Amino acid sequence: MRVIVEPRRTYRLINHGPTTLISSAAGGKRNVMAASWVVALDFDPPKLAAVIGGDTYTKELVDASREFVVSLPTVAMVDLTYAVGNVSGRKVDKFERFGIRTAPASKVSAPLIEGCVAWLECKATPEPRMEEEYGLYAAEVVAAWADDEVFSDGLWRFPDDTRRTIHHLSKGIFFATGERVEARETPA
Amino acid sequence: MRVIVEPRRTYRLINHGPTTLISSAAGGKRNVMAASWVVALDFDPPKLAAVIGGDTYTKELVDASREFVVSLPTVAMVDLTYAVGNVSGRKVDKFERFGIRTAPASKVSAPLIEGCVAWLECKATPEPRMEEEYGLYAAEVVAAWADDEVFSDGLWRFPDDTRRTIHHLSKGIFFATGERVEARETPA
Repeated sequence: MRVIVEPRRTYRLINHGPTTLISSAAGGKRNVMAASWVVALDFDPPKLAAVIGGDTYTKELVDASREFVVSLPTVAMVDLTYAVGNVSGRKVDKFERFGIRTAPASKVSAPLIEGCVAWLECKATPEPRMEEEYGLYAAEVVAAWADDEVFSDGLWRFPDDTRRTIHHLSKGIFFATGERVEARETPA
Repeated sequence: MRVIVEPRRTYRLINHGPTTLISSAAGGKRNVMAASWVVALDFDPPKLAAVIGGDTYTKELVDASREFVVSLPTVAMVDLTYAVGNVSGRKVDKFERFGIRTAPASKVSAPLIEGCVAWLECKATPEPRMEEEYGLYAAEVVAAWADDEVFSDGLWRFPDDTRRTIHHLSKGIFFATGERVEARETPA
């Protein structure tokens, strides 16, 4: 079930550096792209930054709406994640082309991507220099959601390997988020 | 063996979103901190951005030198990674305190952290607004290195589980970089 993630725990959805899908919508058009270059910027209120390349259709829609959604795909979704990263939304409607189901977000016009395990609704803060120089969009996360079978009480607990989040290396090679390893408390 | 990583492949060292150690040096002082909020910004010449908190000793040293090194710790190093993220270098010399061995970098004054599996030598580009507003330092990677038993030909090939890179969730809970999953080519 999709449940709200508290603002103070929202950074934990992306702190482990997963590859994401960024969806956008403006003027009756919508799009989705794959993005590995997403990073947390602050805890509470939660902020993140995402690189959205200069020649992408997503950039056009984000520039128009100043909103986007970051969704976290799973091992079961690697083919889809790679596919939406390799086709431009200017040429095809990727939602139709790849049978991507969506759900409405609560505070932004961009849709949530179904099948993912977490969703961050983002409103971009105007940072013209960052956007022009690096394609880097700073945003406040205005609402966050997670599948409570996979993320609950602020922790990832992957119930099976197909629902692990993923980390793109290059050219369709991904790594699943792997085994949990706990550090010992630092001695005083 | 530590070998050079070509500029065009350098992004592959951090594309999967691992947690890092950031080392710095200035005026005869040095420090190391843990940082999960590191992201690639560009391919070639390779650039990255790292959040370096406003009240950290690392920020002081980076502001003075405009240089830092991003090293990638492993599963074997989770205790150390957590420890250097929880103690300020203003209070203790973390290198002495935790027995951290270093090697000189090739192009910057900050040291490489031994035991890690990749190293990115960085020179910060002046971006006063990003640095002040988000603690976000944009940098060019002026040299990059990897342990060729773990990263070679542009690919991660973890020879054993202790040398996998790590991804911090929160409070000492990490995930190892997990199983390799390959996407199918997108049908035309």
